[in-house]
Amino acid sequence: MSHPVSPLAPKTLPSLPVIEGVVIATAEAGIRYKGRTDVLYVGLAEGTRVAGVFTRSKCPSAPVDWCRSALEGGSARALVVNSGNANAFTGAKGAQAVSRTAEIAARAAGCATGEVFVASTGVIGEPLDASKFEGVLEDCAGRARADLWQEAARAIMTTDTFPKLATRTIELDGAEIRLNGIAKGAGMIAPDMATMLAFVFTDAPVAAAVLQEILSEANARSFNCVTVDGDTSTSDTLLAFATGKAGIAEIADAQDPRAKSLAIALEDLLVELAQLVARDGEGARKFVTVRVVGAVDDASAKRVAISIANSPLVKTAIAGEDANWGRVVMAVGKAGEPADRDRLSISFGDIRVAKNGARDPDYSEEATSAYMEGEDIVICADLGLGDGEARVWTCDLTKAYVEINGDYRS
Amino acid sequence: MSHPVSPLAPKTLPSLPVIEGVVIATAEAGIRYKGRTDVLYVGLAEGTRVAGVFTRSKCPSAPVDWCRSALEGGSARALVVNSGNANAFTGAKGAQAVSRTAEIAARAAGCATGEVFVASTGVIGEPLDASKFEGVLEDCAGRARADLWQEAARAIMTTDTFPKLATRTIELDGAEIRLNGIAKGAGMIAPDMATMLAFVFTDAPVAAAVLQEILSEANARSFNCVTVDGDTSTSDTLLAFATGKAGIAEIADAQDPRAKSLAIALEDLLVELAQLVARDGEGARKFVTVRVVGAVDDASAKRVAISIANSPLVKTAIAGEDANWGRVVMAVGKAGEPADRDRLSISFGDIRVAKNGARDPDYSEEATSAYMEGEDIVICADLGLGDGEARVWTCDLTKAYVEINGDYRS
Repeated sequence: MSHPVSPLAPKTLPSLPVIEGVVIATAEAGIRYKGRTDVLYVGLAEGTRVAGVFTRSKCPSAPVDWCRSALEGGSARALVVNSGNANAFTGAKGAQAVSRTAEIAARAAGCATGEVFVASTGVIGEPLDASKFEGVLEDCAGRARADLWQEAARAIMTTDTFPKLATRTIELDGAEIRLNGIAKGAGMIAPDMATMLAFVFTDAPVAAAVLQEILSEANARSFNCVTVDGDTSTSDTLLAFATGKAGIAEIADAQDPRAKSLAIALEDLLVELAQLVARDGEGARKFVTVRVVGAVDDASAKRVAISIANSPLVKTAIAGEDANWGRVVMAVGKAGEPADRDRLSISFGDIRVAKNGARDPDYSEEATSAYMEGEDIVICADLGLGDGEARVWTCDLTKAYVEINGDYRS
Repeated sequence: MSHPVSPLAPKTLPSLPVIEGVVIATAEAGIRYKGRTDVLYVGLAEGTRVAGVFTRSKCPSAPVDWCRSALEGGSARALVVNSGNANAFTGAKGAQAVSRTAEIAARAAGCATGEVFVASTGVIGEPLDASKFEGVLEDCAGRARADLWQEAARAIMTTDTFPKLATRTIELDGAEIRLNGIAKGAGMIAPDMATMLAFVFTDAPVAAAVLQEILSEANARSFNCVTVDGDTSTSDTLLAFATGKAGIAEIADAQDPRAKSLAIALEDLLVELAQLVARDGEGARKFVTVRVVGAVDDASAKRVAISIANSPLVKTAIAGEDANWGRVVMAVGKAGEPADRDRLSISFGDIRVAKNGARDPDYSEEATSAYMEGEDIVICADLGLGDGEARVWTCDLTKAYVEINGDYRS
């Protein structure tokens, strides 16, 4: 928490509207931090539907195991998130801690344990003492309010330097439908920390299967397009809750045109949250968009874009304000995807620096250098092979990243 | 060149013996650097056989294209290496430059252009002016000597902080067989630089096909087990030359027991060179060996080991002298290979810090911290699933890496 706020942070925090069926409380349970909130409790109205996307790690945390299993029920009444301890790699004790947490929350919310969703973020490998939630969650349930979105976003922060919130409103069947989202994450997060968590809430009435389908698709085009350091957390969790309180007929089919409208708004919201994560990347000084076009297909474009976005040499060059297209070529080449050196073109912003496999004779070093001094950098690689496209977001790699993740013992 | 010598550099340079059939000269061609050699010329006796392994980049340099094609002939009379310019991503001009270089060298050596091997290392995307070799290579051929191995290793350096040489001697059929090797590489190398190059020479008489087979296998277990930053060069080149001057019968078959002896010596030599590359990793302060055991098979173990060795969070933790096994778990989990969280054990040196998916209750934080202060760190992850094993070498990720690769404009 002692790190200065990222220079890429938004200048103001958005104000999120009430979502009927959602109430919020935060608390200090003393899990690790002193003098700050570390527990988020969200109460959800009866009938709330839920969908989720989780880390692909083969070593997921105990809460991820719990949520995967709870999702099968399709309905949710409470969400409990703690910061300070990830409850990951904690063996049988970890599973016990998460079920104890769910029991305490179920009592507080008056629901079944299978309707409680749990996420934890913080140190890996430390047992989580779930007895700390005793009393705390019941108290939270008693005083939860509809207007505490900023408090919610703050309670789940670890080494984030700013809270991350976004909201969207759309009209369906003449009703105003609201979507609110919060997220945390700043790389894989120091010291010892890990995880990107995001929670989205809407008053739209959506069947769980439809919500899952649009959430998975929106996630693929938002959070799965962000990389800070290429390190995948054991605990990544994205959950969407639909309270159904908007007073329109249920969206029960993915082919319903209203599902499409909702999907567009959801993706747009998740993209904003995902970009906020990259903007809070550990040590970040530049926000970077990598676009790949002309690949053989979209999946291939995505793999090339990720290869560029994760390359330490590309990221350090950006930190040094150097339009080092040779390193972009290197990263295209190492991706293992179809690429033809002699058709490759590379641009920084609107400036094409290389075309057809060699330096563009028309490019101005001076204009490029001026562009690289900006805060938002767009790199585009045109492979010249087909119609495949992708774009991913990342940040530069600075000495501050190494400091945050390596120097804290000195 | 202005960077201080790596603290992990060997205290003394080995003295390499003469290899009959190999003569060496170096020169200052003024390709990019001032006041240092930047050209290596190696003359090879008639009958020299050659084998090679190259970058898997889809955007290889022009010299890589040339060598791949020249290898089909199987015989070599000259090797020309320049530093300062990689002749990579230079379009049609790049191919012209390398064939011009081969013509000049062929005239100097009195051989066919197809018997000339060329490697270049340095800036990407700058046209290489091959006319600078005119006169220089002829002069080199005239004054080449058998005892200039250190000079050879120095001429091919870019941002390397020390020259890399190794030698082995074995006995075959009562004759002393010598193997000498030189290498360069220090990550993907700043500023603008790229490439790992290595050249091995032996007086053993070996058929080109046999040499290729043992070289490919030895490479898989040496250079392909090193990573500094996970960034693959456009120009990686490993060539082996066998002059056949040792005066024993030709090794014409890979089943010949002498081929096995030679393969063992070659692998041992390449492992030494490969480790020297990791020891000269940009900004490196720790030499790291990652061992993975208990994987479902060796290939799976290798992918998990590479995932650990390339993880920025693992590497910065090592720089911070922190036995952060949670990050090792994370890197195992993200590799996408079969892994069971609850069977996983992790050790630093001889200290087991985690077993069966949770912190080892017996481990001493103090002893581990003392171990992490050392210069050579061994991380072992036991997946507990099968017999698959692998080990890779890397270095830590320090602020100096970012400085070398990003800050040079400031």
